[in-house]
Amino acid sequence: MVKVDMTLDLPTIRSAHERIRPHIHRTLVLTSSRLDEASGGSLFFKCENFQKIGAFKARGATNAVFSLGDAMARRGVATHSSGNHGAAVARAAKLRGIPAHIVMPSNSAKVKIRAVENYGARVVFCEPTEEARETVCADVIAKTGATLIHSFENPDVIAGQGTAVVELLEDVPDLDLVMCPIGGGGLLAGTAVAAKSMRPNIRVIAAEPENADDAAQSFRAGRVIHTEKKFTIADGLRTNVGEPNFAIIKRYVDDIVTVSEKAIISAMRTIWETMKIIIEPSAAVPFAAIQERQPSRDSGTASSPPDESVQLADKIHVSGKRVGIILTGGNVDLDALPWNP
Amino acid sequence: MVKVDMTLDLPTIRSAHERIRPHIHRTLVLTSSRLDEASGGSLFFKCENFQKIGAFKARGATNAVFSLGDAMARRGVATHSSGNHGAAVARAAKLRGIPAHIVMPSNSAKVKIRAVENYGARVVFCEPTEEARETVCADVIAKTGATLIHSFENPDVIAGQGTAVVELLEDVPDLDLVMCPIGGGGLLAGTAVAAKSMRPNIRVIAAEPENADDAAQSFRAGRVIHTEKKFTIADGLRTNVGEPNFAIIKRYVDDIVTVSEKAIISAMRTIWETMKIIIEPSAAVPFAAIQERQPSRDSGTASSPPDESVQLADKIHVSGKRVGIILTGGNVDLDALPWNP
Repeated sequence: MVKVDMTLDLPTIRSAHERIRPHIHRTLVLTSSRLDEASGGSLFFKCENFQKIGAFKARGATNAVFSLGDAMARRGVATHSSGNHGAAVARAAKLRGIPAHIVMPSNSAKVKIRAVENYGARVVFCEPTEEARETVCADVIAKTGATLIHSFENPDVIAGQGTAVVELLEDVPDLDLVMCPIGGGGLLAGTAVAAKSMRPNIRVIAAEPENADDAAQSFRAGRVIHTEKKFTIADGLRTNVGEPNFAIIKRYVDDIVTVSEKAIISAMRTIWETMKIIIEPSAAVPFAAIQERQPSRDSGTASSPPDESVQLADKIHVSGKRVGIILTGGNVDLDALPWNP
Repeated sequence: MVKVDMTLDLPTIRSAHERIRPHIHRTLVLTSSRLDEASGGSLFFKCENFQKIGAFKARGATNAVFSLGDAMARRGVATHSSGNHGAAVARAAKLRGIPAHIVMPSNSAKVKIRAVENYGARVVFCEPTEEARETVCADVIAKTGATLIHSFENPDVIAGQGTAVVELLEDVPDLDLVMCPIGGGGLLAGTAVAAKSMRPNIRVIAAEPENADDAAQSFRAGRVIHTEKKFTIADGLRTNVGEPNFAIIKRYVDDIVTVSEKAIISAMRTIWETMKIIIEPSAAVPFAAIQERQPSRDSGTASSPPDESVQLADKIHVSGKRVGIILTGGNVDLDALPWNP
């Protein structure tokens, strides 16, 4: 048995799973013989792009909203979100019949704004900065008495996100490695606790855009480091990692690797073209790491670069391995695809 | 028992299924609660976009190539195709270890040309006319001794295409209606025979772009009518219906309806955004018919237009019905999407 974090353990995640089961999809696990051939491994894609609201965020938000006591629930819920978490809270609130106030940056993707509105939630726009989001959300909460459902620091949200890998390991028990992206760290924290508890020898590796590499830097430093963000196409991963999330991540995660913007776009396109499924840029980040950080196939030959050993720590070895990859979402603005000018 | 066509019956289609089973995917059937709500029916999407080579064409071509005697097979196979059938023949020939010559119009989508070449087949380009395709293909056959695998008139191809609906009806036995697109009529002929044999009361309705409506016109006239084609985004459906196909279609199909270009693009986008799967324009045509030809939800009220009864024959009634839809393929040039200028 893995010794798990005080506030999060496998039984908590399993309880979350029971709580949300009537309200979410048990998503498919897809494979691709072509991508297996290209990578040399056996890749199992957990298709959270097929999840309700089109992203894994339905899991955590539903668990948090349905964990509230009746009195608190009646006063409603509020959150700030660039999109998927907002839609997830809006949907969960609708299912529970309570009000939801979703603070969204004014530059959010249209498809994500529409999704929130379609669930009958009140959208409150704010300037596209972390500070404005928090200020406006605090203001909404002060005025309405709603409960904040934070998108990654809320423990019920983290437990809910951990249910995706529970299903994945029920369907494919003998994984050697599981990969997911990291933004605030809700999914990664839940995934790491569930995966290491269910299968102690599994490796858990997260991937992050190098343009928003605070989690990788924090992981190397052993403490939370907030970084100035450059633009990344993986808009779901621009957030800094949360403190409670990092405490779990530091303990259970094996590595956090970064990927270039070019690799994200290429990975996204490869999955669209090969698997015929739609994933959003953030969801492509783990596969981008596999594509970009694959050890040279002929690394044993004389043509290997002399500094190979220096770089090896950053490589992802999937050859001969069974690898689970959480495809986190599929909400894309089809009018603004990254490969179109 | 349905009295089936001399040359095509359910046992033949089941034999084809046994023959190709090791070489094709048994594809998923997906549902969407959102599209069910929007249509009022229960829609079951048979995902041949997930099929080998990204389209149902793998079924018919594999059956035809593996039905050849050894002596004929050794001399190779040839076909002309705007894409998916070409890739399917190329792949089947590679699996059998025989040469393949694929005649393709010079304006074929890049992704489809690459697919054929990746299977090691020889691509022979021709002018983008029906006549040039046939002439060049006949020339290739004269020079090589290869066997023609026609994309829709070949009886083994038709039997192979019929295996998709066999799987669909095994997974969802109680369908009221099954829909597929019609181009040359290989899929529709195989589907109609299999569906009506397995479930005599099922309705079979095909959908066709109004810009390439030869099959609908032929169906109304009771004889094959070739029409001058206007441009359609559904490039897989530009072909005129084949004579042997029409003989079967006339006997077993309940209706052929047409859809506008606008409806095809809208249906394709709806399926991408809602189901998070990639389908090509031709694959969107049946769902376009459901969207474009749905009876008014309030047709019983005073606001109904007075000429409603005149139009009813052209409407598709899916409300309260269980409807199978064959999503025929997912090979799209992501650099040339119909909603991008």
